[in-house]
Amino acid sequence: MSFSPLIRHLIDALRGLPGVGPKTAQRMALHLLERDRDVARHLAGALATAMDGVGYCSRCRTLSENDICAICADPRRDATLLCVLQSPADVWAVEQAGGFTGRYFVLKGQLSPIDGMGPEEIGIPALLEAVERSDVAEVILATNPTVEGEATAHYIASMLKPRGIKVSRIAHGVPLGGELEYIDGGTLAHALAGRTPIL
Amino acid sequence: MSFSPLIRHLIDALRGLPGVGPKTAQRMALHLLERDRDVARHLAGALATAMDGVGYCSRCRTLSENDICAICADPRRDATLLCVLQSPADVWAVEQAGGFTGRYFVLKGQLSPIDGMGPEEIGIPALLEAVERSDVAEVILATNPTVEGEATAHYIASMLKPRGIKVSRIAHGVPLGGELEYIDGGTLAHALAGRTPIL
Repeated sequence: MSFSPLIRHLIDALRGLPGVGPKTAQRMALHLLERDRDVARHLAGALATAMDGVGYCSRCRTLSENDICAICADPRRDATLLCVLQSPADVWAVEQAGGFTGRYFVLKGQLSPIDGMGPEEIGIPALLEAVERSDVAEVILATNPTVEGEATAHYIASMLKPRGIKVSRIAHGVPLGGELEYIDGGTLAHALAGRTPIL
Repeated sequence: MSFSPLIRHLIDALRGLPGVGPKTAQRMALHLLERDRDVARHLAGALATAMDGVGYCSRCRTLSENDICAICADPRRDATLLCVLQSPADVWAVEQAGGFTGRYFVLKGQLSPIDGMGPEEIGIPALLEAVERSDVAEVILATNPTVEGEATAHYIASMLKPRGIKVSRIAHGVPLGGELEYIDGGTLAHALAGRTPIL
């Protein structure tokens, strides 16, 4: 036998969630049907509302349900410091780490000519415009330390330097709590090259 | 900062899914918002439809969107063989294993006086009634091999035996592909006690 159509449909829909395979989807469907119908109805509502209500901040381009997101709208944030990231998830990660008091600009990914992602596609012209129109004194490039992320950072730096903007790149090295023995060679080489004086 | 209210609400709702913690819920919310809004809308619809449309089969009590489920409605299933299980998930598991051609009866869990689950609560009177009203010749007890599952099986057997119904229990022993070295003692003792002659 197979599941009845509505259950089959629910299992298939749950598989659309990232990291959810057939077994997990089946377990979720059963759990919701047998124990948590209210939770499921609540989730259905939250999904529909969020998909229709959440857009992008017109200033920093992170996910936001208002035209200007809470960070851009906060007058206490330092308008002279702009952190450039690849995705809204990165904004959340930096915010959750705490300590950064500047503002953000979110690119739509990273330069990747092979995937058709050029400067236009990822929003670099909009970034340059945003920098020109504001009081930004320093741009911190926090794209991923991958080949594409580095290329993106270098491209942006090359565009901003001539405009007299200070440009920096976040530090890459051994993560806190990491053991040298288990760190990959690339990271270790980066950490050595980027050494800073102490005392 | 924190997430905007709609995103926060979506993340909280996703945590209602079994096995989904805060990090996973955040990842799912972001994935849906950034990449798969149609998938999310589809999931919202499937959840709402399934929660309202799926009930229980009035005959075997498994999850079903019709009054009589597809298995109970199938005339090719052997009506003399009834397999008693603890949950709809167990029906799915047996069906997916294949080979069983009889019908099912799904209890609402297992006897557990400490949780207030007596024979009434888990549906044993309904099971006895279903057996009496039908042509069932053999009842196969497939409750879990736990203390409560065994108690449930023994209780049902004690109610059916006087009525002249053949009652059997599924075999417990070393699982296929299992290595003796890694099997727990209880299972091993069970496997030895339940040995069957070969050749």
